[in-house]
Amino acid sequence: MTVYSAPSRELLFTLQSIGRLGDLSGFELYEHATPETVEQVIEEAGRLARDVIAPTNPIGDKNGAKLENGRVLLPKEFETAWKAYTEGGWPGVPFEAEFGGQSLPWTVTVAVSELWSSSNMAFGLVMLLNQGATEAIHAHGTEEQKAIYLEKMIAGEWTGTMNLTEPQAGSDLGEIKSRATPGEDGTWRIKGQKIFITFGEHDLAKNIIHLVLAKTPGAPAGSKGISCFIVPKFLINEDGSLGKRNDVRCVSLEHKIGIHGSPTCVMAFGDNDDCVGYMIGKENRGLQAMFTMMNNARLSVGVQGLGLAERAYQQALAFAQERRQSRAVGAPPGPSAIIEHPDVRRMLFTMRSTIDAMRALVCRNALAIDLAKVAPTEEERTNERALADLLTPITKSWCTDRGTDLTSLNIQIHGGMGFIEETGAAQHWRDSRIAPIYEGTNGIQAIDLVTRKVPLQGGDTVRGLIGEIEAVIPALNAAGHADLAAIAAALAPAAAGFAKATDWVLANVATNTDDVLATASTYLEMAGNVVGGWLLARQALAAVEKLKEDGADRKFFGARIASARYFAEQRLPVAAALLGPVTTGNAILADLPGLLVA
Amino acid sequence: MTVYSAPSRELLFTLQSIGRLGDLSGFELYEHATPETVEQVIEEAGRLARDVIAPTNPIGDKNGAKLENGRVLLPKEFETAWKAYTEGGWPGVPFEAEFGGQSLPWTVTVAVSELWSSSNMAFGLVMLLNQGATEAIHAHGTEEQKAIYLEKMIAGEWTGTMNLTEPQAGSDLGEIKSRATPGEDGTWRIKGQKIFITFGEHDLAKNIIHLVLAKTPGAPAGSKGISCFIVPKFLINEDGSLGKRNDVRCVSLEHKIGIHGSPTCVMAFGDNDDCVGYMIGKENRGLQAMFTMMNNARLSVGVQGLGLAERAYQQALAFAQERRQSRAVGAPPGPSAIIEHPDVRRMLFTMRSTIDAMRALVCRNALAIDLAKVAPTEEERTNERALADLLTPITKSWCTDRGTDLTSLNIQIHGGMGFIEETGAAQHWRDSRIAPIYEGTNGIQAIDLVTRKVPLQGGDTVRGLIGEIEAVIPALNAAGHADLAAIAAALAPAAAGFAKATDWVLANVATNTDDVLATASTYLEMAGNVVGGWLLARQALAAVEKLKEDGADRKFFGARIASARYFAEQRLPVAAALLGPVTTGNAILADLPGLLVA
Repeated sequence: MTVYSAPSRELLFTLQSIGRLGDLSGFELYEHATPETVEQVIEEAGRLARDVIAPTNPIGDKNGAKLENGRVLLPKEFETAWKAYTEGGWPGVPFEAEFGGQSLPWTVTVAVSELWSSSNMAFGLVMLLNQGATEAIHAHGTEEQKAIYLEKMIAGEWTGTMNLTEPQAGSDLGEIKSRATPGEDGTWRIKGQKIFITFGEHDLAKNIIHLVLAKTPGAPAGSKGISCFIVPKFLINEDGSLGKRNDVRCVSLEHKIGIHGSPTCVMAFGDNDDCVGYMIGKENRGLQAMFTMMNNARLSVGVQGLGLAERAYQQALAFAQERRQSRAVGAPPGPSAIIEHPDVRRMLFTMRSTIDAMRALVCRNALAIDLAKVAPTEEERTNERALADLLTPITKSWCTDRGTDLTSLNIQIHGGMGFIEETGAAQHWRDSRIAPIYEGTNGIQAIDLVTRKVPLQGGDTVRGLIGEIEAVIPALNAAGHADLAAIAAALAPAAAGFAKATDWVLANVATNTDDVLATASTYLEMAGNVVGGWLLARQALAAVEKLKEDGADRKFFGARIASARYFAEQRLPVAAALLGPVTTGNAILADLPGLLVA
Repeated sequence: MTVYSAPSRELLFTLQSIGRLGDLSGFELYEHATPETVEQVIEEAGRLARDVIAPTNPIGDKNGAKLENGRVLLPKEFETAWKAYTEGGWPGVPFEAEFGGQSLPWTVTVAVSELWSSSNMAFGLVMLLNQGATEAIHAHGTEEQKAIYLEKMIAGEWTGTMNLTEPQAGSDLGEIKSRATPGEDGTWRIKGQKIFITFGEHDLAKNIIHLVLAKTPGAPAGSKGISCFIVPKFLINEDGSLGKRNDVRCVSLEHKIGIHGSPTCVMAFGDNDDCVGYMIGKENRGLQAMFTMMNNARLSVGVQGLGLAERAYQQALAFAQERRQSRAVGAPPGPSAIIEHPDVRRMLFTMRSTIDAMRALVCRNALAIDLAKVAPTEEERTNERALADLLTPITKSWCTDRGTDLTSLNIQIHGGMGFIEETGAAQHWRDSRIAPIYEGTNGIQAIDLVTRKVPLQGGDTVRGLIGEIEAVIPALNAAGHADLAAIAAALAPAAAGFAKATDWVLANVATNTDDVLATASTYLEMAGNVVGGWLLARQALAAVEKLKEDGADRKFFGARIASARYFAEQRLPVAAALLGPVTTGNAILADLPGLLVA
């Protein structure tokens, strides 16, 4: 098993070239996020990820989470890692200082999250769910609720969960059956069963704060009749100490393809009719409370795809330098290191360049979230909010699909050894497979993209993005640099195709909705590639500038330019060619049941 | 878990429209392969696959193979299945009647193999390895060796294995260290360790016939100094009865991502210096003996990708009809079956149309093997032999990569349930991941394609294939049928792009070899899509003809036309667009180690 090493320079370059690292600390909210501080944060997080968390990853995969007498047992190494993580103040990265947070921008939060995902994605889920629940309480809780929960959750003393799914209600939350009935004291009694609850039970934290969707008596049918409740594992006394055990328990764990270190729980609420819940937000507006959090969680799931791909890439690169097999063309006699073989290089550089694009996309998405808060004008804040909304389904789906692709390439580079579990390549691929499914399947993301996000601001959000993409082409051509010109040559038709596909989506989404839905996933794939290629092009421009400085690291910046060109030449022609498939619509698929189903 | 059902009609239609089913029985060698007999064979194999073999698949996955005191224990259900399989005479399908075989053509053999791969790929491996070893002895054994081994192996009383890989010698067999020293009696003593030996030890058969690559004293270095030996688990007495146990044993089993029911053995030969082997073929010509068999084995591995994809498709279709979630556009109130949602249909029809293309490709490849034996003229036999050689790496790689893609789509259609092992969707995806690796990694196939197969007959083989592809376009346009015209419109630029990419490969492979190697996998992907699209177009033409008959099954043949059109419109534009990526060559990758490696 190779050692994981945090890609700090890559992260910092991405923050500099895409994430407006220097600028953000000019805004009061992020005044602590100076470049020096951010660099330190990433270095420290990288050390924790490498030295403490990464060693727990194969252990978690092998031993998994176990349920014994209602208790979920995790590998003891997870406890040590959780202690180090919480003592370092890491759960507080994106939260305000008022509640003990570090007030760092999302651009930095996602950079740090990548390190957790790379070092142990399964373990990283307890962080992710806690962050999401904390955000939801922060956004929708009463002052009293915030006072009770936020500080403890941000300290990692307690952790949060999200309880949405039921067997009949997955993508369609309108179908949930869990019920909440009012108690006499203003609290609620919750009854129902939830499935797929990540870290629904564990002993890392002293308390677990469940956010639970349920229906109140007489609530409207469907998604407009769902309320959200805080259900603590242990009730909290007036003095803040822990009181009696609430009537909620984990009744079983799922046996999954991957993320074995993350307990996926079936949770029973109110089996003894004594499960106490506290409504958060307004009655029947529970989905809104969840969606606040879900957008950022979707971005974070995209980050998981990136983190696993990076981990797999490091492993593949190390193996390819080590393993000797067959003599390469022009090499000295005897077997060459397999990195000398062009087809292995193809796989490695496909990983590398795609990862660079994923990281840039994640960063731009996070920047939009930050600027939506701090940008100086209302117009800019509105536009960045819309851009964040537009990019989020793309980041979630494109990065998680690529996560599965690239972890599979790592297996392929390992050859027969890749299929053997002990090598460690397999785990990342198995782990990766959940990310295209949870937090809204990638199909749901695509539907969200074409029906809600592309039409935002009457289409001006996506048109503005396309305008930015097109604007980089003359800049690339003006530089008098062969690599940049080659990138421009590939980007121009891809951007034009994306613009046409977008026009088609906008023209048809209201009237020929099924046509647009039928190719929504293909449109999303096109969008991910074009936006990724554009961001890499910007980074290549930045790298060319950097190389003009004395003593510039030719290897590092040269790799950035090569990465952008490789991505442009290999992927963008395919992205451009998706215009045809996107615009074919639904005609054949409409006949499908008639053709296939008896 | 859904019930597997053999796609008999699809197989027969493929044999009729692509496999020259009626014609082949006109040749003496295949005189028994009348359409009626073939239909019966497929029906019977389908029953065995569905009723006996398919139920063993999840059992094999869950319980796996276990090593206890040198014995490999398999689930007892495997014994029952093996008994039914051998009693039915199935191991003999492709072999001559002289040794108890059924003398059926390869087009039928691969159709039947698909059923075994769908119903239990791991179990199917013992069949596959036995078939390969039988072929090798058939082609290279002495008359005495054939007399001793073939009948028993074709009866499935004994099974065969292939012992090639060693830890330092995977793709590069020239590096093997196993040694063979001559004994006094004309036999040899074998010493060495082999890894990744499929069904290297088990109790299904009374004896195991290992084919083992080893080096004789003074053998030339590298792949030109490798000999092949028959090493029986039990030596065989003069009267054909089993004698003493040979000095060969299984020392451990690998812990793999998938195919848990297939024991992957580390085999020790000659630990006590008493491992008896018999040379097969000429000294130092062992690789040639293996390659005879390997070509057909590569086709059979392509069939595994197809078989798993078909199994996954059936599961996905059943789930999509059953599972209700969210109301589809225009559907009655309440959740619709998810097959009503266009994005789910997209996934299902992507599976369906790609499977149709895979099956057609497998069939055409097998037909070339058959015609190479029986075609009336020497020229035709030579050309079909070359075509079989050309298509084999494409079938192996393209079908196995698609196998992994499509089994992954099955998981995606299942949503969260797909990630849970008990659902059964996961197993197919895990199982599928070995196929792009073994029998020569897909990268090795791509190298074989561009360096040896495309240049066959000075490029005339591939040019002949392209000519056949181009020839279907006017036929499609002449039919006055909108679907066929749409297929032609997509196929024409894809064929043109493939022709140009092929010219580039031919022009550069000798002089700029690294450029061609750098994009060989992309060229192979292009080839697979274009050849697949062409064969589907031919099937669509055949279906249009069939629909002119009275009482034709409109649904069945309509689905064939829709499948071809969907594949053409969704995949062929992307295939055409690969011309750019293919012809970019190696420039960036040549710099890769300088850029990436410290």
